[in-house]
Amino acid sequence: MKLWEKNVRQVTPYVPGEQPRLPDMIKLNTNESPYPPAPGVKKALDAMAGDTLRLYPDPACDSLVTALADYYHVKKEQVFVGVGSDDVLSMAFLTFFNSSRPVLFPDITYSFYDVWAKVYGIPYVQKPLREDLTIDPEDYKEENGGIVFPNPNAPTGILLPPEAVEDIVRSNPGSVVIVDEAYIDFGGTSALPLIEKYDNLLVVQTFSKSRSMAGMRIGYAMGSEALIRHMVSVKESVNSYTMNTPSLLAGVAAVEDDAYFRDCCHKIITTRERVKKELKALGFSFGDSMSNFLFVTHKDCPARELFEALRQKHIFVRYFDRPRIDDYLRITVGTDAEMDALTGFLQEYLSGRKETD
Amino acid sequence: MKLWEKNVRQVTPYVPGEQPRLPDMIKLNTNESPYPPAPGVKKALDAMAGDTLRLYPDPACDSLVTALADYYHVKKEQVFVGVGSDDVLSMAFLTFFNSSRPVLFPDITYSFYDVWAKVYGIPYVQKPLREDLTIDPEDYKEENGGIVFPNPNAPTGILLPPEAVEDIVRSNPGSVVIVDEAYIDFGGTSALPLIEKYDNLLVVQTFSKSRSMAGMRIGYAMGSEALIRHMVSVKESVNSYTMNTPSLLAGVAAVEDDAYFRDCCHKIITTRERVKKELKALGFSFGDSMSNFLFVTHKDCPARELFEALRQKHIFVRYFDRPRIDDYLRITVGTDAEMDALTGFLQEYLSGRKETD
Repeated sequence: MKLWEKNVRQVTPYVPGEQPRLPDMIKLNTNESPYPPAPGVKKALDAMAGDTLRLYPDPACDSLVTALADYYHVKKEQVFVGVGSDDVLSMAFLTFFNSSRPVLFPDITYSFYDVWAKVYGIPYVQKPLREDLTIDPEDYKEENGGIVFPNPNAPTGILLPPEAVEDIVRSNPGSVVIVDEAYIDFGGTSALPLIEKYDNLLVVQTFSKSRSMAGMRIGYAMGSEALIRHMVSVKESVNSYTMNTPSLLAGVAAVEDDAYFRDCCHKIITTRERVKKELKALGFSFGDSMSNFLFVTHKDCPARELFEALRQKHIFVRYFDRPRIDDYLRITVGTDAEMDALTGFLQEYLSGRKETD
Repeated sequence: MKLWEKNVRQVTPYVPGEQPRLPDMIKLNTNESPYPPAPGVKKALDAMAGDTLRLYPDPACDSLVTALADYYHVKKEQVFVGVGSDDVLSMAFLTFFNSSRPVLFPDITYSFYDVWAKVYGIPYVQKPLREDLTIDPEDYKEENGGIVFPNPNAPTGILLPPEAVEDIVRSNPGSVVIVDEAYIDFGGTSALPLIEKYDNLLVVQTFSKSRSMAGMRIGYAMGSEALIRHMVSVKESVNSYTMNTPSLLAGVAAVEDDAYFRDCCHKIITTRERVKKELKALGFSFGDSMSNFLFVTHKDCPARELFEALRQKHIFVRYFDRPRIDDYLRITVGTDAEMDALTGFLQEYLSGRKETD
């Protein structure tokens, strides 16, 4: 070890899903939208004068914050924007989770939560999901330094009903409760209306899934003015200018085209429900996903084997080699054609496998 | 105080320069370039297919990292990129400054250093600049948990000679030394060659000044492979996808046009040297700025008064109401026409003031 290395922060980094770039691939591994962003997004970027880029962007991101506030019928002072919901969540951990009591989150959940806890030195306890992979709200009523969970949960896709979310928030007036709604637009009910009633509730959403803009890195949080004020102060202590000019322009354009947004969500939901039936017929089982992915296990064929077989065909899905979920695949809902290719291959593979048994 | 507020991180945020947007303004307050980005930048953005944005960007930023590595003749493994040099510096503080000994930096310097130290709970000591506002390398030879300084220093613009930088790095094998070279392209000598000799030296630069892209938020660090590996691990523990797709495309295009880059730097240096003479003739004094700004004080007229008078004319410069520098103005070097407007107004204002004495 070098002398200076004794002062290096010890971390266990998050491992993002792989980002292959093959011309013929079917990419169903990182929950991106199969549809392009709203047409206005490209127009807004093309209209940007080249000279604009020489100037700093607005550090308050007023245009984008205003667009989101108008869209969700909240005040500008209730909206925080960041470089993807990961930036927003990381900033929320840093801002709100500074207790000696543990932060609580599920054992099977977004795998960045424990990474943030470790990098910022936050104590945490992971609460096991029930056997059916659902969250038990009772687990979140013990002493804690904060609570965070995705709704729908990832990678299960299962939604906690709004009453259960409210129960958790109501039971924890001494903690900030973060509800990570990255996948809420695919049929779930957002906790957003509750921010008017509970000043300790932070709702986090993203442009990466339902708004087809993973490449632009835009996430946002909504909560009480007090919560947002604290987050802005911490953000202004880390990086004043997080959102670049193209992000601000593209973000506003995306929010403005509500019809396009709803249409994309509707198409993905329709495809998902159809594919659920087909996968069931093929011998898969899964919780009732309300997200843009399916988390499936097969009665006969190990998930890892299917993962490798799909990969060979350049169909990329996500496999987590972790306790309790190592026999599951997380499959993003793509276009109808992509899902037909997937189910077509699975049918062929599984029946071929049966014959050789 | 709300119950949950007891766990909120206490911070004193950085206050960025104001970002007025007036049609007739002359903006010399935040050290942006007066020239647009390289023509290839706009072309690269226009050529980006709209559909690209639905996919996550490459988390390793390989295209941009490779372009920078080629340009600076270092290995890819020696380059780290982030959302402006603020993101890079913040990440470096979090990664390398984890000692109970204080981090050292000048008392008059980039005012984000103490903000990062506070937000991350890092002890620090500020070393007073000499009377002539230069850094004394001897101050950086006592026990410490890390060292950081800009070169040229901000807001003084004064360059520490390469031998003095090397002296500091050599004297501190147990600490990471960060040299923040945001303004190095305007006539200074970079410490970059020293990274091959000292594995504890991190050199940080930015696209916001000399590459005319403050609006795009791109900064980078270069150092030993060990240093960069640690930074990447911490970055992957905070946000995997920091650089959006437009940033990666635009960044590569900017690096590719070296002739344009050199031409812009040359024009700014030429204007700066001319304006130095004119300001001297008007009764201003200042250190020998090697940056794209001048840090000036006037023999008769208080800086604050000039700041307000310029502001009235929509000429924005930066004034810091802080001990030792509260009679200085920091003036960004703009176009020749902008600087003529500035000096013309100052001449008029100062002579009018003399008459009324």
